[in-house]
Amino acid sequence: MTFVFPQKILFRHCDPAGIVFYPRFFEMINDCVEAFFERELAFPFSEIHRDGAVPTAETSTTFLAPCRLGEELTIELQVTNLGRTSMGIALRAECGGETRFETKSTLVFVSEKGRPQPWPEQVRHKVDRFLNR
Amino acid sequence: MTFVFPQKILFRHCDPAGIVFYPRFFEMINDCVEAFFERELAFPFSEIHRDGAVPTAETSTTFLAPCRLGEELTIELQVTNLGRTSMGIALRAECGGETRFETKSTLVFVSEKGRPQPWPEQVRHKVDRFLNR
Amino acid sequence: MTFVFPQKILFRHCDPAGIVFYPRFFEMINDCVEAFFERELAFPFSEIHRDGAVPTAETSTTFLAPCRLGEELTIELQVTNLGRTSMGIALRAECGGETRFETKSTLVFVSEKGRPQPWPEQVRHKVDRFLNR
Amino acid sequence: MTFVFPQKILFRHCDPAGIVFYPRFFEMINDCVEAFFERELAFPFSEIHRDGAVPTAETSTTFLAPCRLGEELTIELQVTNLGRTSMGIALRAECGGETRFETKSTLVFVSEKGRPQPWPEQVRHKVDRFLNR
Repeated sequence: MTFVFPQKILFRHCDPAGIVFYPRFFEMINDCVEAFFERELAFPFSEIHRDGAVPTAETSTTFLAPCRLGEELTIELQVTNLGRTSMGIALRAECGGETRFETKSTLVFVSEKGRPQPWPEQVRHKVDRFLNR
Repeated sequence: MTFVFPQKILFRHCDPAGIVFYPRFFEMINDCVEAFFERELAFPFSEIHRDGAVPTAETSTTFLAPCRLGEELTIELQVTNLGRTSMGIALRAECGGETRFETKSTLVFVSEKGRPQPWPEQVRHKVDRFLNR
Repeated sequence: MTFVFPQKILFRHCDPAGIVFYPRFFEMINDCVEAFFERELAFPFSEIHRDGAVPTAETSTTFLAPCRLGEELTIELQVTNLGRTSMGIALRAECGGETRFETKSTLVFVSEKGRPQPWPEQVRHKVDRFLNR
Repeated sequence: MTFVFPQKILFRHCDPAGIVFYPRFFEMINDCVEAFFERELAFPFSEIHRDGAVPTAETSTTFLAPCRLGEELTIELQVTNLGRTSMGIALRAECGGETRFETKSTLVFVSEKGRPQPWPEQVRHKVDRFLNR
């Protein structure tokens, strides 16, 4: 299964060249991951951040085509790997049948002190159907 | 040679976990690249963006340790490759002798229409001493 | 009539104090205005910015209570004044029956050169029912 | 006395109209206030946020002229009022002898629980010479 996150390109995303300023793509990616955790894993960031966090340990992106103001992106998220304390994800953003960017990231579930800790069992369970190794 | 860019961790960079929200690192990286083009290549973004742009085509980052409010990072930039229309760069951010993140990116010099175009000769010339293949 | 814009408080909005970093409220306000122009005035920013803009000339905000990660704000927008080239708007954000902030802004419709220009007639017409002097 | 904060207009500040996107001005204002607290009041945000915060309660801005990529702003900050738990500030940003924006804000010093608390005596003392009622 794939988590699908629609993302309209807004004014605040765009730069003087009239296209998305690339750090804003990472804000969109974070919004997508945040929605995935809340809607699909029933583990919202507001709950996680009471005494933990889900920092990104690695991220790698290829930007294939620019995105313009007003375009409607679709971001698709799959889980590529589920470790004891980490999660590999792959995202692909497309618009009009064209891939705009592809990202692979590794997230880590950490305690308040920043130490990796095991994913809760119910989270592991819910991740399963998005897992596409 | 290495281009050195000091970057203090400011309030606007930090998240509820008290550490830098990772999309802000890409804003810092962009600021570093922008300063490098202006100060070392004499090719400021305000000039480039009259009829061109320098989009990032690929970027890959490993975050090794979190950064906290008030810390003073040093970001070092080297050029790893200079193509006809592209430039590979490597950045390393450190604080207190500890590497916090490492990034590799590929930039492309494009025309107003988004087509790759050759770097100006004087830019190629100035890049040379930062080139560390 | 009132334009209603739901806005969930996301991770990227929040600061080390665990509440919304106030410049992010202005991003939300801009998103709300952008949606109002597109959905209600049929004058999307992507069309406006082909050869014009809608800069904010004045803005004044009172923050009555902080907003926290995961809260669901409702932002209500009314038009308080419609000049030949300007528009006064009032926004109120509430959550759980409590007002969180109130803003008054003046927008100006300008040409590519930044000169004020008259609102298109069909925009004036559509604004009418949101006008609450 | 006036606290002077130089601010170059960077790529990340600018929008598709080629001018500063106004929420970025509030990031600049926050950077200026943060520098003022650290450099002049010896009360850095990293210390304040261990168990408190300095939220903005009110802010009001007039934008007089747009700012463009590459311009070098000078932001001047004065304290207009010092209450027991609040501080009124006035900022003016100029470039080339022209005022670009003027802001008045009220900050409040609060405890971890968000309750207003008195400014430390040494802070009151240091604020004095920036006080211009």
